[in-house]
This record gives sequence, structure tokens and C-alpha cells, in this order.
Amino acid sequence: MIPEDHPRYRSLMARERIADGVRSGMVVIEGASAHGRGEAFDYLLGEKSSASAKRAEKTAAAFLLAGFRTVISVNGNTAALAAAEIRDLAEASGAAVEINLFHRTDVRMETITAHLKANGVTVLEGTAERLLPLSHDRALCLRDGIYAADVVLVPLEDGDRCEALVAMGKTVITIDLNPLSRTAQTATLTIVDELTRALPNITRACREQNPETGEQLIADHDNHRLLYAALQTMQETLTDAMD
Amino acid sequence: MIPEDHPRYRSLMARERIADGVRSGMVVIEGASAHGRGEAFDYLLGEKSSASAKRAEKTAAAFLLAGFRTVISVNGNTAALAAAEIRDLAEASGAAVEINLFHRTDVRMETITAHLKANGVTVLEGTAERLLPLSHDRALCLRDGIYAADVVLVPLEDGDRCEALVAMGKTVITIDLNPLSRTAQTATLTIVDELTRALPNITRACREQNPETGEQLIADHDNHRLLYAALQTMQETLTDAMD
Repeated sequence: MIPEDHPRYRSLMARERIADGVRSGMVVIEGASAHGRGEAFDYLLGEKSSASAKRAEKTAAAFLLAGFRTVISVNGNTAALAAAEIRDLAEASGAAVEINLFHRTDVRMETITAHLKANGVTVLEGTAERLLPLSHDRALCLRDGIYAADVVLVPLEDGDRCEALVAMGKTVITIDLNPLSRTAQTATLTIVDELTRALPNITRACREQNPETGEQLIADHDNHRLLYAALQTMQETLTDAMD
Repeated sequence: MIPEDHPRYRSLMARERIADGVRSGMVVIEGASAHGRGEAFDYLLGEKSSASAKRAEKTAAAFLLAGFRTVISVNGNTAALAAAEIRDLAEASGAAVEINLFHRTDVRMETITAHLKANGVTVLEGTAERLLPLSHDRALCLRDGIYAADVVLVPLEDGDRCEALVAMGKTVITIDLNPLSRTAQTATLTIVDELTRALPNITRACREQNPETGEQLIADHDNHRLLYAALQTMQETLTDAMD
């Protein structure tokens, strides 16, 4: 057991949830490595939401509230780390939830669906079709879900898939701790923050934001500026360490 | 299959070897996460051995050649990633190889021993005793191995164990991609480089180095300078990305 007052309690708990996710079949081993990469970048962010991340989270809320058809795409890591946070965000934003796996198998789809439902998430179901401009099963999604959406939130997404969604003309919001990743560089809006900090911040903004504020945030949105700010925060951590 | 001319071939192959290691029981899930953290830092190093890392590797060779009783401590990740490189270094440096696991079970000890032997590594065997100033099984090591050594190479080591070895008065060399980790900050000599690049560089230096060069490298060794240089390299990557 990790004591709650451990300075890195949240990070260690998340690591444990990912390990449990591997054991239960929700998370693939590659997902555990990917989580580790995220941890390293989060360490460089000081394991807290920066001012620019908080702005990105408010802007994400604005995009979700302004969208006509909004979908939150959930993969194994997201389900293992943040099922309850996904439920709250879906409720506050009105977005639908679709499970979308890079390493897709029927048994993983079922395990993750069951886990999300057990946490009170309403999950879009149906027959996935190859509708994304990608090869093989990576193209699979629901016609009434991600395919039809104008705004999609894809936390912890693969670069190819993010690019494909952008190429389809969608507003793509991602949550990615690596500001240099292809996903981070390609998305319409990149939240460089840890998933379980980011999601509640978006949820809160969905509940509190008035439409004028949202319109202004969207009008002023500049993803390059957000990525730059994240890199700057990481640089400051390294500089502090060099003293 | 990852094509050999893929720009990130080595990194993707290493990731695959870790996933295979989890499946075969050599690597724990926590090891896969730890590998991911390393990948992130290696990305910031440009996935190559910096000038300061190369100097660190030559200095490691000098310490290993000058030691009276030298041991390479091998854990699950190291065995999965670099069994052949460990064999070559043991041969070139004259160091013994001892398996030392953070998550120790008999079956993991056996699996890793078999894997190392299959790769031509001579592995120290015997009954481990609680000889390190640590609680529980973390204290286990061989009396004629790590306990008796004056110089130990502990790649990818845990912070507590690294501190314990330093406290016992040993020269502790580590290979750690995170220059801010407790292991990196505590070791006598920290090589901030990726394992499968670092080991062959140390091996080459063991074969080529003359004693005068080695003495000079040891006399001039300044670990703080090496860590500072690694942080600087990472900062430069971030700065380049901000252009």
C-alpha cells in the first residue's frame, strides 16, 4: 500500500492502476511502456497542471460544449486510469463515449466495456466499420460515433489515428504529456497534462463556463502557443535541476 | 516486424524485447513502465550517446579494470535487453555477473539465469543472504558477489539499493537515462545513456584502454559535471523543438 501522504502518491497509484490493467487484460504491455513515457514527461512538468494546461482544458470544454456531435474516444490506458473521470466528463459535456483500441481484440473490447459500465459510463455500442482512412483494423469505428462526430476527445492517442481524424476535418482534442509527439503536434488542441488531472479540469469548466467565455477561448486558441509553453515548463525544470 | 531502416528501429526493438520479457516472466510490469520512462529521456537525448556519456563509459571501463573484485548486477530489464552485451562486458572487464532482482521470486531468478546462460553469460550462483542495509528481500545478495565487491556496475537500479551500495563504501557505477533520478544522483559514476549503446562502449574501452588513460579518467572524474552535461543535452533538444 502506498501511503496517501507520499509526495508521489498520485503517480504511484496511476502506475499501479496500469499494472492492474495489464493483469486484467484491459491494458496491453505496450500501454504500460507508454504510461512510463508519460510519467517521465509529467516529472518534467513538476507533476502539476501548468497555467497553459489549465487554459487548454478550458478551451477543450469550450470545443466540447460548442460541438454538434461530440465523442470521447477511450482506449485501455484511459479506461484503467480514469473510468470515473470519463463518466463525469461525458455527463457534464454531453459527449458520447466510444471505445477505440489500437490493439483491438473482442475480449479486450468486452473487458473494457464491462469496466466502464461498472463505473457508470454509458458506452456507445454497435458494429464497428472500417471508416477511418487507415489500414487494417485501425480504421474501425462506429458510424454513429467517432465517424459522425465533429469534435472528438482522444486522450493518449496514437499519431496515425490522430492525423486521420484531423484529415477528416474533425476538431481533435488530445491529452498527451509529450509535447513533441506526433499526436501532440497534429491535434487541433493539445492538453499537455496528466489524464486524471486534465479530465476533472475539463469537467469543471464544462459545468461553469458561459458561452461567451467559450467563444472567446475558441477564437483565441493557438495550439502552437500551448505546446511552446509546455516545452518551456519542462525546460525550467531542467534548469532548476542544474543549479 | 519493424523494418531495420526505420529511424527508431533500435528503440522499437528494445520496446519489443521488454514486452517479450514480460510475457516470458523475466520482466515485471513495473519494468515495462520503467522502460517507458527511460525511452522518454532517451528521446530528449536524441537517442544517441552524447560526448559526456562516452566519457562516462570510458571512465566506467577504467573503474572496472582498476577494481579488485568487480560485479555486474543484472535485473530483469537488463537481462531482457542486453544479455549478449553483458556477456561481452563481463569477458572484457573480468567482472562477475550476479542476478539481483527488486521483485524477487524463485521462478524469475530461474528464468533469468537460464536466459543469461543461453546467451553465454557465466552467472554467479549460490545462496543469497541479507547482507545489504535494506529491509526485507531487497537486502539479498551473494557474499562472494556484490557483498565482497569493491566496484559494482548496477544498470537500471533502484534508488534505495544504489544508496545502500554507496553507503557500504563501494564504487557504484550506474546506467540511468534519467539524470534526476535518485540512483543517478547517488551513484559514484552515472552513465546517462541507453543500456544497449552504453554496454558496448564500456566493453570497447575495456579492450582498448591503457592503464595511464584509465588512471587519468578516474582522477578527473566529476559525476556532477556528467549529470549537468546530460541535463544540458536534454535542454538543447527542447530548445530546438521550440524553434
